[in-house]
Amino acid sequence: MNAEIVAVGSELLTPDHLDTNSLFLTGRLNEAGFEVHLKTIVGDSAHEITEVVQAALTRSDVVVITGGLGPTEDDVTRQAVAEALGRRLSLDAGLLENLRRRFAGRGIPMPAINDRQAFTIEGAEVLPNPNGSAPGMWIAEGTRHIALMPGPPNELKPMYDAQVAPRVAALGGGRRVVRRALRIIGMTESEVDSITAPIYSTCSSVQTTILASAGYIGLYMYQWVRSGERPEQVDSLSQAIQATLGDAVFTTSDESLEEVLGRMLRESGNTLAVAESCTSGLIGMRLTGVPGSSDYFLGGVLCYSNKVKEHLCGVPAALIQQHGAVSPEVAEALAQGVRQAIGSSIGLSVTGIAGPGGGSADKPVGLVYLGLADAKTTTHARRVIPGDRQTVRERTAAFALALLRRRLLATE
Amino acid sequence: MNAEIVAVGSELLTPDHLDTNSLFLTGRLNEAGFEVHLKTIVGDSAHEITEVVQAALTRSDVVVITGGLGPTEDDVTRQAVAEALGRRLSLDAGLLENLRRRFAGRGIPMPAINDRQAFTIEGAEVLPNPNGSAPGMWIAEGTRHIALMPGPPNELKPMYDAQVAPRVAALGGGRRVVRRALRIIGMTESEVDSITAPIYSTCSSVQTTILASAGYIGLYMYQWVRSGERPEQVDSLSQAIQATLGDAVFTTSDESLEEVLGRMLRESGNTLAVAESCTSGLIGMRLTGVPGSSDYFLGGVLCYSNKVKEHLCGVPAALIQQHGAVSPEVAEALAQGVRQAIGSSIGLSVTGIAGPGGGSADKPVGLVYLGLADAKTTTHARRVIPGDRQTVRERTAAFALALLRRRLLATE
Repeated sequence: MNAEIVAVGSELLTPDHLDTNSLFLTGRLNEAGFEVHLKTIVGDSAHEITEVVQAALTRSDVVVITGGLGPTEDDVTRQAVAEALGRRLSLDAGLLENLRRRFAGRGIPMPAINDRQAFTIEGAEVLPNPNGSAPGMWIAEGTRHIALMPGPPNELKPMYDAQVAPRVAALGGGRRVVRRALRIIGMTESEVDSITAPIYSTCSSVQTTILASAGYIGLYMYQWVRSGERPEQVDSLSQAIQATLGDAVFTTSDESLEEVLGRMLRESGNTLAVAESCTSGLIGMRLTGVPGSSDYFLGGVLCYSNKVKEHLCGVPAALIQQHGAVSPEVAEALAQGVRQAIGSSIGLSVTGIAGPGGGSADKPVGLVYLGLADAKTTTHARRVIPGDRQTVRERTAAFALALLRRRLLATE
Repeated sequence: MNAEIVAVGSELLTPDHLDTNSLFLTGRLNEAGFEVHLKTIVGDSAHEITEVVQAALTRSDVVVITGGLGPTEDDVTRQAVAEALGRRLSLDAGLLENLRRRFAGRGIPMPAINDRQAFTIEGAEVLPNPNGSAPGMWIAEGTRHIALMPGPPNELKPMYDAQVAPRVAALGGGRRVVRRALRIIGMTESEVDSITAPIYSTCSSVQTTILASAGYIGLYMYQWVRSGERPEQVDSLSQAIQATLGDAVFTTSDESLEEVLGRMLRESGNTLAVAESCTSGLIGMRLTGVPGSSDYFLGGVLCYSNKVKEHLCGVPAALIQQHGAVSPEVAEALAQGVRQAIGSSIGLSVTGIAGPGGGSADKPVGLVYLGLADAKTTTHARRVIPGDRQTVRERTAAFALALLRRRLLATE
């Protein structure tokens, strides 16, 4: 069975705004066996919403409509959907009472315009909204169904899970989607694609997409299976790709690289300190995004200026003088120095030229050196990263974490 | 005149992927006087694309279609649009020759499947693609027009600007949109809304939206004006809102807060160092995202553990013992200490409980203290920030930058 999402709101048609609710809704609908085959974003225009909803009802088993249920003149979804169905709107006395109580509870009188939110479409089941003033609706139209929900994510998501999900499940999607995800580090999107395309392109029953996210490459595989059917194709494809990519795959379970590293550091009894020059906080920020990271992340130095490299990380001024701040020697000295200054078992460092200025023929923009030191060994790695300042910084941080992971894998 | 965007690609209908090209396209179309009144995302299904394009042609002056122009079986946009228009596809010998040359230039023979990309729709103007193998097309259908472009942003954007923009401009949108943007710091989205709604809701000719972005609140106003008409309403609304919000507005020109702070630091001859505990890099990363920030940002300490607060930022162990690491006293000592350790004119610090663990009745999750020290004065600020770990960290960083801005404003 299939589903279609209609997002209502003129703000979603500006250059500043995307509809992101549909990602959440698609995940949930897929789990229930509904393939999302169309999404429409439409402004606060009653006749256009009506037209879009009528078209959706000709082709989709479930139509999920979000937004436009507020109390103002702009909020026309209720009327437009009633019009699409040829049904009336009527005032629901119970809802009105609830709304009044909701405002009274906050110690303010209900504005008259909020009356609008107590109107329901003939035949609709009302979906309570504990997090806002706009109730949702569930409407059967022959064999088709409509879910009408408010746009704010903190109202929509709980309402979907509590009210819509069981109703959608009861329709029985018949099929379900099985999703496998690999997260890959230390390769570019096109490297991943050129290595894996010969494998996934032979498997037409699985839809494969590759997507560069901040800090890693995601490879996603989806297979639709009937009830009782095993997802053999997607599993064997996933295994074949994993075998080919080797330990570039850092997780198969949607974990972040920081979570994986945190587990590896904790299990190996290591602690970490970082010295960040051109990334200046990106690595520390990522590592400490994980709750409980204080168990293994002790701290770091943002050694943006050479003085800080010298005074807080103990890099000899002469070394910087001789080799330049962006050099393998300074990367290694930073890793050793920050390890000692902070008293961690491992020190990780980054020094590079993020651009757009500061490059030379010898040391171009995008050149970075990474250093890694533990009690026994100090190593470095060199990369030249194409792209703008932000890209260079993000990919440098990712490479640094990849380097750390490789060391932890090697000493496991 | 109005425009509609159709994004083709089954990957855009998964829970992992959004169509982001439409933000770029909307901005460009708006500038040319076209309001984007509908967006549709459809999978690689020829009959659905045909249906969507036919519907679009009944209601939109310009229909921009992206994606599905690749060489594989999945890429069916060409056929589907030809079908929608009732026109033929035919092989364009010149295009085929270009494609062969393109592959030859890269030293590889052209795969047979790429022939598909040399087929054009009867009556279409071909739009060259210097960045990929899929050419675009521009098609007139009565008074309506279709632009067909490849999906990859690095192919689509240059093609739009070089080929589509002049053709769209020649149609003469008649109106243009005037956009004003305010960026606000130190307030929440709902605070901004409750203060400004009484103002903007009286101005129905301007569309106003408020959007929380990472680190600031954006308030966007759009007014459509006819050629020669002055955007009086949007300008007076923008001024009225600015007057009400006062110096919470940090820019009216789409600059980032970091850019504004960088300019203020540079102009006042100040240099900055940061001591970050719970944000652990977020502030340093944001400040150094600005090219040339090494002029005023010297470095920082990620003082995640108490030892680092003591050893690198000179906070007395007794002070931490007495007041706890999350306290006004330690925030101030960190700001003073990092200023001295790094030798900057200003020191900015953060210490707090990002959660989800680590809170107590006394010091709940979300409690943060910010410290700010210069040669004369040391101050602190306290905030309790609701939300999850990431929200607490992001808003803490934003509050810290807001505090710095306030100090720089006061000493201007």
